[in-house]
Amino acid sequence: MRGYYAGAMAATQPNESAGRGVPRELAREEIDTFLGEQRIARLGCHAGGETYVVPVIYGFDGESVVAVTTEGRKIAMLRENPAVCVEVDEYDTDGRGSWRSVIAQGVYEELSGDDVWAALEVLRERFMRSSGRVAEPRAMSENVVVFRIRLGELTGRAVER
Amino acid sequence: MRGYYAGAMAATQPNESAGRGVPRELAREEIDTFLGEQRIARLGCHAGGETYVVPVIYGFDGESVVAVTTEGRKIAMLRENPAVCVEVDEYDTDGRGSWRSVIAQGVYEELSGDDVWAALEVLRERFMRSSGRVAEPRAMSENVVVFRIRLGELTGRAVER
Repeated sequence: MRGYYAGAMAATQPNESAGRGVPRELAREEIDTFLGEQRIARLGCHAGGETYVVPVIYGFDGESVVAVTTEGRKIAMLRENPAVCVEVDEYDTDGRGSWRSVIAQGVYEELSGDDVWAALEVLRERFMRSSGRVAEPRAMSENVVVFRIRLGELTGRAVER
Repeated sequence: MRGYYAGAMAATQPNESAGRGVPRELAREEIDTFLGEQRIARLGCHAGGETYVVPVIYGFDGESVVAVTTEGRKIAMLRENPAVCVEVDEYDTDGRGSWRSVIAQGVYEELSGDDVWAALEVLRERFMRSSGRVAEPRAMSENVVVFRIRLGELTGRAVER
């Protein structure tokens, strides 16, 4: 396609591949650090012919993303099809249009027994780190689901300006 | 599931349905305002048996999300299956764990001719609004794709603390 367009926008496009803003691949250590720093993951679920993207507050234990939620559409879809895409990104925190993004395919797994407590500990530690507060114990309701998503190959890209 | 867990985390869970943090449905006007304010949408694509979530910088014209990108995996998937989920969210900008999220099913459509310029104008205006700068015209490379996603029914939820 030829023509002219608003270049400053292109400069903030994730897939801009020419000139300023060429993305570089993140190394595995950078990906791990990034996943440890961020708080929100978007999960891409697919079931019954429909794709659904949902945000979750997550913790990262080095191999898996863990989260707590309640039963609902998202959980119903993940039970039907546990193959899920996990995406975490950060945009323009420096005001210059820098961004980074990590994407992985993963497998959804509901937790029980000791795995629940291990996952909650990851989340508790993550919460303390970002808030400076200690999370108080609280009764869990019947429909709470604690799950992990085991991550396969991780890819990460970044533009630093 | 019974037990005790770190309640402060539950209070920041999007799907928490009891006590503090019960989400409310957003009205259509609130959804439109929110989509006009935000900058990053996550697109859920599904093709070849795989789901993929990708962030894009978007503009919203009141009916569709428009964006500019370059050809790649995302575009290949959207060409194969134009049914796409659009998700936009915002977390905790007040430091109290408030959040809002909008999700819609949409249809991917590549633009040509006058539609390209209309979409670029939406993005140019959006860029000016957030940056205070005017985007300079720039030559478009061959592999640039301008697209819109026509949004079907929009649902939005929010927790305000």
